[in-house]
Amino acid sequence: MRFDIITLFPDFFTSPLNCSLLGKAIAKEIATVNLLNPRGFTTDKHRKVDDITYGGGVGMLLKPEPIFAAVESLPVLPKREIILVTPQGEPLNQPLLKDLATNYQQLVIICGHYEGVDERIRQHLVTKEISLGDFVLTCGEIPALALINGVTRLLPGTVGKIESLKQESFETELLDYPQYTRPAEFRGWSVPEVLRNGNHKLIDEWRKKEQVKRTHDRRPDLYEQWTMNNEQ
Amino acid sequence: MRFDIITLFPDFFTSPLNCSLLGKAIAKEIATVNLLNPRGFTTDKHRKVDDITYGGGVGMLLKPEPIFAAVESLPVLPKREIILVTPQGEPLNQPLLKDLATNYQQLVIICGHYEGVDERIRQHLVTKEISLGDFVLTCGEIPALALINGVTRLLPGTVGKIESLKQESFETELLDYPQYTRPAEFRGWSVPEVLRNGNHKLIDEWRKKEQVKRTHDRRPDLYEQWTMNNEQ
Repeated sequence: MRFDIITLFPDFFTSPLNCSLLGKAIAKEIATVNLLNPRGFTTDKHRKVDDITYGGGVGMLLKPEPIFAAVESLPVLPKREIILVTPQGEPLNQPLLKDLATNYQQLVIICGHYEGVDERIRQHLVTKEISLGDFVLTCGEIPALALINGVTRLLPGTVGKIESLKQESFETELLDYPQYTRPAEFRGWSVPEVLRNGNHKLIDEWRKKEQVKRTHDRRPDLYEQWTMNNEQ
Repeated sequence: MRFDIITLFPDFFTSPLNCSLLGKAIAKEIATVNLLNPRGFTTDKHRKVDDITYGGGVGMLLKPEPIFAAVESLPVLPKREIILVTPQGEPLNQPLLKDLATNYQQLVIICGHYEGVDERIRQHLVTKEISLGDFVLTCGEIPALALINGVTRLLPGTVGKIESLKQESFETELLDYPQYTRPAEFRGWSVPEVLRNGNHKLIDEWRKKEQVKRTHDRRPDLYEQWTMNNEQ
């Protein structure tokens, strides 16, 4: 997978891209991340990337010219998506990450900044708008990092054991069950007996029951969806 | 605001915390970020922070002892929350960010890794579980960064103009309207006439109409909530 990140702050990515599983995936060339600063594509002497809002309003918007020029300077792989990360986009979820990881070779990610981007970037350049959630951050770099991480995690070779992915992906339908590791007793709090007796049928039943209970209690929205899917 | 981040990968945060608005807020001491590695709180010679799952399962869990010890080593400010970032938590949204920014002095954020954390950490140490969304990442460091950024952005002094926050926070009820900056014409695509004629009553009407339309088209869930709130 080739990621092209259009960002005014390429330095932001230095340490996160070197870290942990993501750093290893990049080292193994499962993913490549190319950082491109739109400031390098300005043509005026002040290298202006932002300007005031038509109609009035506080804050600056990213201008269209440098963003178009930056994206148009990139090689084009056959299956690519040009993504804007923005609170106005489609909310990110696991099926969307899976689609991006499976069906694309190149993800261009435009990081918004200041008040946002000129509407013509949305309308005439971007092919998909993605939102990390219903909250506001100062920059698109953090959502871009979440996208890079969530997609790369699903690429073959990144996560060691395929079972690990299978189990976790279930989390999008039901929340995970409680998990325990050593020590068996810690400050008087014990690991449930059922997990320690080696009866895998009982363990599976306990885990499923806990998943359903936790989803019901914490996320009625997911629980409702799950019961609907299971009635069909 | 004091942030204490419990992380196996403190280096992850180096460049993001130096960057842009967040770096400035830290430089101005509006926020302080303290990084703490639970590996420093292990007592065995292998400095073991993770172990296998009781009852079977792929992947490793974070052990309770080093996490408890790391958190218990911290000073305790009167209003603090101990947060675990996890897909099982309460979904992050703008009211939650506002609550954290307004009502707390110290946010301890535990970054999960591998398969997750021992359940006793959730039950007996953590006071709040927060989810970035219904998707899986390889680590809790990215959600932690989103929390630090989203909370710090709301602290007095971080964002220059208070109006900028007021306007954006509205995005949690309705999506934002289209915004345009210079040039007025770009590749034949013009800025809408209404935004250029200086009639602020018409501009406000156009913007509100576009917000409602966009929310209706893109996020029926938010639209429904908004119409309900406005009927009351």
